[in-house]
Amino acid sequence: MTLPLNIGIAGLGTVGAGVFGLLAAEAPTLEQRSGRRLRVVAVSARSRDKDRGIDLSAVRWHDDPLALAADPAVEVVVELIGGAEGVARSLVEAALARGKPVVTANKALLAIHGTALAEAAESAGVALAFEAAVAGGIPIVKAIREGLAANAISRVFGILNGTSNYILTQMQEQGRDFAAVLAEAQSLGYAEADPGFDVDGIDAAHKLALLASLAFNARVNFPSVHVEGIRHVSARDIAFARELGYCIKLLAIARLTPLGLEQRVHPCMIDADSAIAHVSDVFNAVVVEGNLADRTMFSGRGAGAGPTASAVVADLADIASGRRAPAFGVPTASLKTLAASPMAAHVGPYYVRLMVSDRPGVIADITAVLRDERISIASLLQHGRAAAPGQSVPVVMITHETVEVAMLRALERIAGLDAVLEPARMIRIEQL
Amino acid sequence: MTLPLNIGIAGLGTVGAGVFGLLAAEAPTLEQRSGRRLRVVAVSARSRDKDRGIDLSAVRWHDDPLALAADPAVEVVVELIGGAEGVARSLVEAALARGKPVVTANKALLAIHGTALAEAAESAGVALAFEAAVAGGIPIVKAIREGLAANAISRVFGILNGTSNYILTQMQEQGRDFAAVLAEAQSLGYAEADPGFDVDGIDAAHKLALLASLAFNARVNFPSVHVEGIRHVSARDIAFARELGYCIKLLAIARLTPLGLEQRVHPCMIDADSAIAHVSDVFNAVVVEGNLADRTMFSGRGAGAGPTASAVVADLADIASGRRAPAFGVPTASLKTLAASPMAAHVGPYYVRLMVSDRPGVIADITAVLRDERISIASLLQHGRAAAPGQSVPVVMITHETVEVAMLRALERIAGLDAVLEPARMIRIEQL
Repeated sequence: MTLPLNIGIAGLGTVGAGVFGLLAAEAPTLEQRSGRRLRVVAVSARSRDKDRGIDLSAVRWHDDPLALAADPAVEVVVELIGGAEGVARSLVEAALARGKPVVTANKALLAIHGTALAEAAESAGVALAFEAAVAGGIPIVKAIREGLAANAISRVFGILNGTSNYILTQMQEQGRDFAAVLAEAQSLGYAEADPGFDVDGIDAAHKLALLASLAFNARVNFPSVHVEGIRHVSARDIAFARELGYCIKLLAIARLTPLGLEQRVHPCMIDADSAIAHVSDVFNAVVVEGNLADRTMFSGRGAGAGPTASAVVADLADIASGRRAPAFGVPTASLKTLAASPMAAHVGPYYVRLMVSDRPGVIADITAVLRDERISIASLLQHGRAAAPGQSVPVVMITHETVEVAMLRALERIAGLDAVLEPARMIRIEQL
Repeated sequence: MTLPLNIGIAGLGTVGAGVFGLLAAEAPTLEQRSGRRLRVVAVSARSRDKDRGIDLSAVRWHDDPLALAADPAVEVVVELIGGAEGVARSLVEAALARGKPVVTANKALLAIHGTALAEAAESAGVALAFEAAVAGGIPIVKAIREGLAANAISRVFGILNGTSNYILTQMQEQGRDFAAVLAEAQSLGYAEADPGFDVDGIDAAHKLALLASLAFNARVNFPSVHVEGIRHVSARDIAFARELGYCIKLLAIARLTPLGLEQRVHPCMIDADSAIAHVSDVFNAVVVEGNLADRTMFSGRGAGAGPTASAVVADLADIASGRRAPAFGVPTASLKTLAASPMAAHVGPYYVRLMVSDRPGVIADITAVLRDERISIASLLQHGRAAAPGQSVPVVMITHETVEVAMLRALERIAGLDAVLEPARMIRIEQL
């Protein structure tokens, strides 16, 4: 006969209410799998009266989430408030300070304060669990931290933002531009009214910082993530990508380089035949490259009430079962401080599209700049003629491996050429 | 200061030697991740003198694996001998009887004796860990048992045998027939001299029985798995599959039906655009369908020294960290005894290819039989004419959802038609 695990949930949005309902509806099964009953004893949210479709009559209500952390009946705190600062942060700190394990879906909080919170959890001897913070229903945190623990990981990358992937998929399938697809996604509820966190790459960067810490046993270093979003991806570039055998995805990539840890989120061209190129719509995927397991890929739904609740409850089952691992795979004192490999030192092939005047000598001028920067061209595409004098035509180039600083210098010089009529579009090619 | 975890390894083939070498080479990292040093203290194998590229001078040698289990210095036994009976079984039973946790890659042993061994482990209060037994380097056992523990799973399926998948991929890419590709795979070392376990579906069936037990918290029921291999898949059927938008894979599928648990391994036609259709060569993949996480897919290398060692050492890290879960997700007393949903009751679409005389009335005779069995045809393909009188032409049909017993009756009657010149080829279509 074991005692139930008494849970306090802070935040009763769709995920919080989903977790609450699930723990009630599936209590017997979850008890079998966890070894203890998972019992919600207290909740906290903004409005007590809102109809969430769940029966709160048997649990204690706290207007103040900090009071939930202090509630002596609460053994584990589930933080589903969100935000890197403010109430969510105070709540998690208060719970850990009281020696209570915390389960959270809060990627922003952990991306910024993850190492400090892991230290607090370790001092208290309790778990800081965040499966729900990365890739929703895909158990990728556990996979990297435990399932692949024997591996030296060299690269981890993935599609970590469903909204961006949905938009890029629609752009690709319909040949439409970003703004039109975003507007439609917003009207369908697939994108927020303020889509910046998603389409500007910030959400993916938060998650990448956590994956990188897990994969490389390093201190979380979100400020070093190079972040670019998808606003500048155009239907024209997607069409060229297809013609060249590529597909454009917003990838989040962390890898070890001779200079340290490279972390970056940006649109990538990837081989259209690769497995991750087939991960479309709102789906997420993570690829882990380890020295023993080689390449493993994990895909599924990265957001939504069900997938997020799946991850939160899995974390609760771990806590109930007494299964614990250090938040980022090793004790915090062993977490490495890896130098940030600067983006200027990034090496890889590049896609560059220029809009130029349709007249003799233009290609010669452009390729002379590239030659000066020792950039080697793997292929060059020029289609058709200008519709009218003075109109521009696209010139597309794929380079061999190039260091980014040289590419940026070349693009700056190319921008100064008379015949180049629009800013160049550069998309990094990721070799899989 | 914690004590090392003292390990005994029985079986020093490529996997055993790989695990041994890895534990030595990566000792500091693995200690950080596991919380304890993972130290091999004893080994057992057939020949002491064979050169395995590892230094055995500091460990105790046991000619008899049972002596390894009895060795008081050994705290955990790693069984890498293989085989469902004999020494491997005795060793695992002996280790558990002595209260020692067991890590094994032995799918055959667990498929046949899994429930009994899980009971023995539970009585002893120790782990029976088998991540390496299913899908090699993909941490799918942990994913289902822990990562997706909150889900009610309705179906789990996958490509679980790399050799078969390699052969089917080569057949598809080269348009060659099974026998030729098998012979080549054997000469390249991708297939065993006796390929039956792989190409006849038995290996996949062993793994499926374990996945099904984990996914449905049911007693392992290998004898109820319906097993068909790939020997009868022909280049001709692969070509028709492609024309119809399908691809042929050897899938292992377990799902709940109104009659109980359906477990089956057989060639399937699946949508050529589906994610799992892109899992080629020796790669494995597992798809789990849960009520919360929806569909998650896990892919990677299913065999080989590195991937298998990755899984074995992850299990050792769990044991060293004190992380434990019941072998099949719940205490053995709670494992369900699910009725085997009979294959005759299977419902799904079917692909049928007949070789018929090229003369009037043949299609009418065939479709009359199908009508009598209430089998509805979704599409029918008939290409070209016979090259010479008396020669056969293929007729291909895709049916709507049909119950298998009706399909088998229809095929038996069709086989009796004068115009049908060869045994029909039937391939089930799996809807993803």
